[in-house]
Amino acid sequence: MTAENLVLRAQCANAIRVLAMDAVQAAGSGHPGMPMGMADIAEALWRHRLRHDPADPRWIDRDRFVVSNGHGSMLLYALLHLSGYALPMDELRRFRQLHSRTPGHPETGVTPGVETTTGPLGQGIGNAVGMALAEKLLAEAFNRPGHSVIDHRTYVFLGDGCLMEGISHEVCSLAGTWRLNKLVAFYDDNGISIDGEVRGWFSDDTPGRFEAYGWTVLRDVDGHDAQALDAAIAQATTADRPVLVCCKTRIGKGSPNRAGTAKAHGEALGDAEIALTRQALGWSAPPFELPARVAQAWSARESGAALHAAWQARFDAYAQEYPALARELLRRHRSDAPLAEEAEAALASAAAAAQQRQAAVATRKASQQVLDEVGPAMPELIGGSADLTGSNLTDWKGHRALKGAGTGNHVHYGVREFGMAAVMNGLALHGGLRPFGGTFLTFSDYARNGVRMSALMKLPVIYVFTHDSIGLGEDGPTHQPVEHASSLRLIPNVDVWRPADATETAVAWRQALRRTDGPSCLLLSRQALPHAGGGERIEAIARGAYVLQRPEAESVALLASGSEVGVALVAAAMLAEDGIAARVVSVPCLDVFERQSADWRHAVIPRHLPRLAVEAGSTGLWWKLVGEHGDVVGLDGFGESAPAGELFRLFGITAEAVAERARRLLAGATRAGAKEPA
Amino acid sequence: MTAENLVLRAQCANAIRVLAMDAVQAAGSGHPGMPMGMADIAEALWRHRLRHDPADPRWIDRDRFVVSNGHGSMLLYALLHLSGYALPMDELRRFRQLHSRTPGHPETGVTPGVETTTGPLGQGIGNAVGMALAEKLLAEAFNRPGHSVIDHRTYVFLGDGCLMEGISHEVCSLAGTWRLNKLVAFYDDNGISIDGEVRGWFSDDTPGRFEAYGWTVLRDVDGHDAQALDAAIAQATTADRPVLVCCKTRIGKGSPNRAGTAKAHGEALGDAEIALTRQALGWSAPPFELPARVAQAWSARESGAALHAAWQARFDAYAQEYPALARELLRRHRSDAPLAEEAEAALASAAAAAQQRQAAVATRKASQQVLDEVGPAMPELIGGSADLTGSNLTDWKGHRALKGAGTGNHVHYGVREFGMAAVMNGLALHGGLRPFGGTFLTFSDYARNGVRMSALMKLPVIYVFTHDSIGLGEDGPTHQPVEHASSLRLIPNVDVWRPADATETAVAWRQALRRTDGPSCLLLSRQALPHAGGGERIEAIARGAYVLQRPEAESVALLASGSEVGVALVAAAMLAEDGIAARVVSVPCLDVFERQSADWRHAVIPRHLPRLAVEAGSTGLWWKLVGEHGDVVGLDGFGESAPAGELFRLFGITAEAVAERARRLLAGATRAGAKEPA
Repeated sequence: MTAENLVLRAQCANAIRVLAMDAVQAAGSGHPGMPMGMADIAEALWRHRLRHDPADPRWIDRDRFVVSNGHGSMLLYALLHLSGYALPMDELRRFRQLHSRTPGHPETGVTPGVETTTGPLGQGIGNAVGMALAEKLLAEAFNRPGHSVIDHRTYVFLGDGCLMEGISHEVCSLAGTWRLNKLVAFYDDNGISIDGEVRGWFSDDTPGRFEAYGWTVLRDVDGHDAQALDAAIAQATTADRPVLVCCKTRIGKGSPNRAGTAKAHGEALGDAEIALTRQALGWSAPPFELPARVAQAWSARESGAALHAAWQARFDAYAQEYPALARELLRRHRSDAPLAEEAEAALASAAAAAQQRQAAVATRKASQQVLDEVGPAMPELIGGSADLTGSNLTDWKGHRALKGAGTGNHVHYGVREFGMAAVMNGLALHGGLRPFGGTFLTFSDYARNGVRMSALMKLPVIYVFTHDSIGLGEDGPTHQPVEHASSLRLIPNVDVWRPADATETAVAWRQALRRTDGPSCLLLSRQALPHAGGGERIEAIARGAYVLQRPEAESVALLASGSEVGVALVAAAMLAEDGIAARVVSVPCLDVFERQSADWRHAVIPRHLPRLAVEAGSTGLWWKLVGEHGDVVGLDGFGESAPAGELFRLFGITAEAVAERARRLLAGATRAGAKEPA
Repeated sequence: MTAENLVLRAQCANAIRVLAMDAVQAAGSGHPGMPMGMADIAEALWRHRLRHDPADPRWIDRDRFVVSNGHGSMLLYALLHLSGYALPMDELRRFRQLHSRTPGHPETGVTPGVETTTGPLGQGIGNAVGMALAEKLLAEAFNRPGHSVIDHRTYVFLGDGCLMEGISHEVCSLAGTWRLNKLVAFYDDNGISIDGEVRGWFSDDTPGRFEAYGWTVLRDVDGHDAQALDAAIAQATTADRPVLVCCKTRIGKGSPNRAGTAKAHGEALGDAEIALTRQALGWSAPPFELPARVAQAWSARESGAALHAAWQARFDAYAQEYPALARELLRRHRSDAPLAEEAEAALASAAAAAQQRQAAVATRKASQQVLDEVGPAMPELIGGSADLTGSNLTDWKGHRALKGAGTGNHVHYGVREFGMAAVMNGLALHGGLRPFGGTFLTFSDYARNGVRMSALMKLPVIYVFTHDSIGLGEDGPTHQPVEHASSLRLIPNVDVWRPADATETAVAWRQALRRTDGPSCLLLSRQALPHAGGGERIEAIARGAYVLQRPEAESVALLASGSEVGVALVAAAMLAEDGIAARVVSVPCLDVFERQSADWRHAVIPRHLPRLAVEAGSTGLWWKLVGEHGDVVGLDGFGESAPAGELFRLFGITAEAVAERARRLLAGATRAGAKEPA
């Protein structure tokens, strides 16, 4: 490499540094340290290796790039702007301002070229593992001899924070086991986290740790030496395993007084230090202006168009020889496409069959029956479980287990709930696959921020959470969900389904699979639940709540979800013997129900009736539906270890108890001036 | 060792196997595989090394023993029964039955000798790390030359599941950094998890991984060879670092047809296989009966009493020489003791000072001011932060940072929220220390099941969750909590405080520190909040909600928490200008408020007034307080990246918007037949 060339490369890296420090300064907040520290690595990767087309950020076969240390968002925005994505300089000026395309942390869907939303540490590397797995699975499924239409890499930047987070252990262990050789992670080893020099709280031998995962580790790469980085990248892209490139860097490099300190991490440098930095870098251009030579050197529009065109030619040849495969590949990558006709037919058939069978069945089993029908019609489904396959019943008839370096359509994630969520997010982000995965509902806690990220990114990931109440029985309070249904409902943009029987389970699956703009959680019972009723209820179920039983002269409404719908039906029958006519409303999905019109909601749950809700879990959210003169039968304390039937009796979640509470409610309502129970 | 002795030891181990398989069979559910696989390790540790006194499970200087793979509860129950704890055989017969002392997973507080509640995988090892840290800190604080009154070890059993979970990475990395040399973990390396042979999803070089954490690793120990185990344990207890003893075992060992298979893990063996196992083990005693020789060999009552007596003599000598220290050590270990007078005085002074200053201050800053006062009066406090010390402001004036192998009273946990929670639970379980730790409220998600375990175990851990709303500003929706306050409130036995100003912050700290039976979360603002008002409100704050402003002829009530109390006060002033008199109710802690009498609750929030609640987060839980004809101003979607002030305006959480909603509410209420807004 010529000296001149090296100078240009340094200037290209400095362009990132200057844009980052100026944008943070303009915003008055942000994180200059990481972009300044990783600028040289970014230059080496983006200008010399990354296969992408700034004109088409959705190109199927592009390399994926993930900033797992998402606070370094300005690095990514600088790269996107410099490379020629639709991210004009004005957007960099508006860093962190309302409705700019440059939010504080990178957000997919907001900024062209941002592959995933990062910031919550450790999840970006998890998404990247999912993307690399998707590439591998799609390449196996679609490539044909002489036709390599899926052949790209996933690159990740990550820092000490990501590596301290537990989720990094889960997903990097999986990447090693799966031999994801097209995954390359660059570790920003700068020795600094927010609290200061990390050695006091992070003394891992990280290279040793990753070797223990079966990764190829490139140690002690000088993260500021372009030639060393080129060599490392060349080596990384020929490995037969995932690669960790350990780059020694200085946080905030370029800033004479802040570089190498925690202060560089998360605050603006200030005008004086910025001036000194400009001087040190030999950078005379004013803020948000670029020397023409640098701008030109960065543009990837031409090279990107050429790469994309070459791929298109390969794809056209493939489409010629394998037209059906080519169509299928494109169909699978349309993230907002409606379900295929065969899938809709399978789902309709599953619901109809369930409705006809009228069988008492655990909804987790009913879920498996739905998968048995829809699985063959949806080859894009990629299931899995966090080591509870035989309990979650995600192993439908046509499942083929992915183990080790093999392929399949069902993933043994091991006991890694959070990792599973992040990997599923990555699978969905990549495109071409529809992930679902299971664990016990209680352990949704472990995955919780991953569910939130599915919701924030509008990813249609499906979470199969079984053993959804004290009905789990003897495993006891550590394993019995109480607050989980409600607390998942509280996460924005998550649809939480708690079906009452096999028919509702089939409809819940249908709605979850139809969704294109957010995740769904299916809360399923361990124990068998009776068939809830007949009639044409499929479309009513899909609206989140519906009237299951509407007697003449009704005087009270019983609302319930999941396993408590059967309880409410029996309670209604008991009340009928006392001459009390009770409407029974099934509420399989509060979230969907709340999106219905007020007319529908009030028709289903009329305000003129006293209302009693029943759910074997937290009562808090039900008061909105029953009103302050209503009542809720539920469980606001922890469960116990005992057979399930005894627990429902112990906690008063039985037909007898519900009928009694309904009688009391009616007695109170008929007294002048209804009083709340104390 | 004589052959006879070896035979006896094998029989002692077999006693565990038989009790486990018989108890699981009697219960019809449970996990025989782990107890049968780890029986020999347990025999070696418990009969030959563990320092404990079955007659006093609370002896301060006992060794701690944690079953991190908590599904192996029958191993622990067998050990406790055999050693002579107050756990009669009848309780083993009632394994997993309602209100037995032998629940499905071990529960501290239920069973004498159970040190922590385990089952959610990976957390037990985290608790153990906390216990070992507590031992180290207390030994440093209390031992004196020639007087070693704190000198015990922490032993952990763990399996593949614990090692797959991310939290194991977080806490074992910390244990290595802290050089917790009195921590010894036994890895049940049986190659099996629920889904089958783990090599398809767990191919880590675990010894290499732990060496990367700075642990001493004993590889390839035969987990069924008593002499090999003795040698390993001897070596483990002389190491200068934490030790991982990698024991090769067979899951379900002893069962001719189930050993070494996933089927041994979690189901009863069945009568036929049990008979075959008895035969294979040469065990003729009927279920729940023990050969006298085995029972006698197991009893640790005499040896335990001797150990305890020897320690008591040492402690008496210590108390003679250092009476104040001895008193303090005992005081600190009384977990249900009221706060010391000095602590109460400091808290009273902090509240009074805040009330007098009337300053606008961020509640995270106010929290630090409280700590500045109370810290010197409570040497048992052990603070910390998950790498956000300067943001959470847990670093009070007298804090001394624990880094690496040093000592201190403030822990840099690194970016390890879940690990922090589990370690804090361990610190609290050990006794002698009162832990608090901070992160951003959003990242409570990462620690969520740890918070739940604090609650289930009734541990008075204090979580300092700062940046409690969109008031966080530019970092954007990944970092802005929305549903978090409400979803923490849903966890049973958690008190969630969201104070409105410095005075409420001081009272929240007081209540949290006074608590002895459960955790508290302090949700604190990034931004400055105005002083909410004058008067004698300290005791009213402590009841969870109180009237802050009660005008004559009031016609509407505004309820708010935290940063929205100031908003409500300004809104009330605006309404007053329109001639509308609004009561303002501050609700710093919904959980505590709901425990008050109905009279108090209705006096504070009267049902005859139209009610409007305001909180910059999920609205769902507020409907119980405002009723269906009330209204809630909140945020049920995700935030945005922008300056905080703009966000409050964007989402309509301003005094203007609240006043307008109150006017609309009143207009609706005065119309005949109040109607819900659509």
